[in-house]
Amino acid sequence: MKTEILTLLRESEDYVSGQELCNRFGVSRTAVWKVMNQLKEEGYVIEAVQNKGYKLKENPDVLSLSELKSRIHNRWAGNTVYFYEETGSTNIDAKRLAEEGAPHGTVVVADKQNAGRGRRGRVWQSPSGKDIYFTLLLRPDFEPDKAAALTLVMALSVAQAVEGSCAVQAGIKWPNDIVVNGKKVCGILTEMNVEPGYIQYVVIGVGINVNLEDFPEEIVKTATSLLLESKAEWPRAELLQSVLKCFEDNYEKFLRTHDLTDIKEEYTKHLVNCNREVRVLDPKGEFEGIARGINAAGELLVETEKDKIVEVYAGEVSVRGLYGYV
Amino acid sequence: MKTEILTLLRESEDYVSGQELCNRFGVSRTAVWKVMNQLKEEGYVIEAVQNKGYKLKENPDVLSLSELKSRIHNRWAGNTVYFYEETGSTNIDAKRLAEEGAPHGTVVVADKQNAGRGRRGRVWQSPSGKDIYFTLLLRPDFEPDKAAALTLVMALSVAQAVEGSCAVQAGIKWPNDIVVNGKKVCGILTEMNVEPGYIQYVVIGVGINVNLEDFPEEIVKTATSLLLESKAEWPRAELLQSVLKCFEDNYEKFLRTHDLTDIKEEYTKHLVNCNREVRVLDPKGEFEGIARGINAAGELLVETEKDKIVEVYAGEVSVRGLYGYV
Repeated sequence: MKTEILTLLRESEDYVSGQELCNRFGVSRTAVWKVMNQLKEEGYVIEAVQNKGYKLKENPDVLSLSELKSRIHNRWAGNTVYFYEETGSTNIDAKRLAEEGAPHGTVVVADKQNAGRGRRGRVWQSPSGKDIYFTLLLRPDFEPDKAAALTLVMALSVAQAVEGSCAVQAGIKWPNDIVVNGKKVCGILTEMNVEPGYIQYVVIGVGINVNLEDFPEEIVKTATSLLLESKAEWPRAELLQSVLKCFEDNYEKFLRTHDLTDIKEEYTKHLVNCNREVRVLDPKGEFEGIARGINAAGELLVETEKDKIVEVYAGEVSVRGLYGYV
Repeated sequence: MKTEILTLLRESEDYVSGQELCNRFGVSRTAVWKVMNQLKEEGYVIEAVQNKGYKLKENPDVLSLSELKSRIHNRWAGNTVYFYEETGSTNIDAKRLAEEGAPHGTVVVADKQNAGRGRRGRVWQSPSGKDIYFTLLLRPDFEPDKAAALTLVMALSVAQAVEGSCAVQAGIKWPNDIVVNGKKVCGILTEMNVEPGYIQYVVIGVGINVNLEDFPEEIVKTATSLLLESKAEWPRAELLQSVLKCFEDNYEKFLRTHDLTDIKEEYTKHLVNCNREVRVLDPKGEFEGIARGINAAGELLVETEKDKIVEVYAGEVSVRGLYGYV
């Protein structure tokens, strides 16, 4: 009932009558009043006026299960949501839930991660109340070697959602960092559990620096938040819904060909490395060239000599711009 | 101390003096006596003779942590052991332990599985006291696409161990079933957790029908146990040690080339399908041919016409003999 009342309050421009809520849910005035108090405790500013009813005065950045459920409306992405105020890592939670049978499209959201991880076990800073950490669980029906490209599908989705919701230009640093004004605002960690030739499940973990104001000195030159770049606070649940919506659309394009054929152009538009000099840190030997976009498999196309293109696979190497982070 | 005492008893042909044990471990006679009682409760038959000491009279098929620790002696395989009398699935346990940082070579053993699984989520019968279910955790340093072949490395290791320990001929039904006299005695389920281009860990689950006497009617024609085929009971912990030892040797050969180059000949010797007609159940179209062995990637080589070899990848298809299970 809390989720429904929250949705009604948000969607109504006028006051919502207490009696109407009682009738609608078949509960007493006291029950409605209790829900309003719970919402206020969670941080919502709700005005109650005699003979008019209740009105949501401000739409603060609350991250709660009710808020998420009242925000998320997609065909499948996020139809099952888990929310933790604090957890170790949403990827680990999602993998556990996957083992227990959680369905395709399940989303695990946390306000704070105690053991947030980046790629290859690196630590990901995850304080509370400011950022969003979530993991999307997928159960694809295609071959494991196709799944690595899903991390690029998510990168594109985050970039589109950030641009659509947060009044900033978002770029992608290949393969899957999201950057605003040359600094990183989002990291993505894709993991999957496979048997030979068969994907059991994929989890895509996303951490977005939304409303964080202070960064540790060692990363202040390379990391930023949407708040710092746009000079405004953004409601995280709304941004999450926007990412999930974009992902759903992009994933359905991905499924047509099981690769990035139908979204690589859109991805390349966001590619901050595009047409810039990059150094490819290949363990077999570093080399330099000019990034020219990606192919359908998600590999970075690097022109090392005139008309000579090397296809760089994300798993093996990393790519650095010659000037600055991107 | 229990494990050490058990090892001493097993390795000593003569009686082991109680006083010697007291001196060795710096404990009282009562403490030694208590350990002997614990071992008796676990099923060991221990004779105690005044002025001579203790002697292990029989070596029964006990599966316990002490038994496992006293049996397993390898360079790395099984140096960390977890034992559960009953668990859902040792693969799920091993994956959880891997997430918590368990080292390469960790082994999870169960006497009974409540939710044992075969490939693609199929149920694996796992009653107690008769069979062995274990999962080996690996943390390889090579590319994910190399790891599918590890399931064949384990198949070979089980076949070698069964032949070495249990007085029967063991064959391999490609890719990873172990058969004795044409019936299945062992199944293997390999899973891995990967990031694009990077293996976090691999778990290889193995279920061996060791001392089971009765099979459900629906599988009695295709499944058997080592007891039924050899007319003898086999100590499961000893068999496990033998499998781990073989795996260690085979894995080290695998690491030389990151494929089966150095063990494919040995594998092919055990291949029951070899030089027989098989039907390849490829979702893209079934076909028949004669199995001719495997290549270094672990693919089955099927001769469809004179000198025309099709390489069959395990993940996508299954292979059936035209006559009977193998």
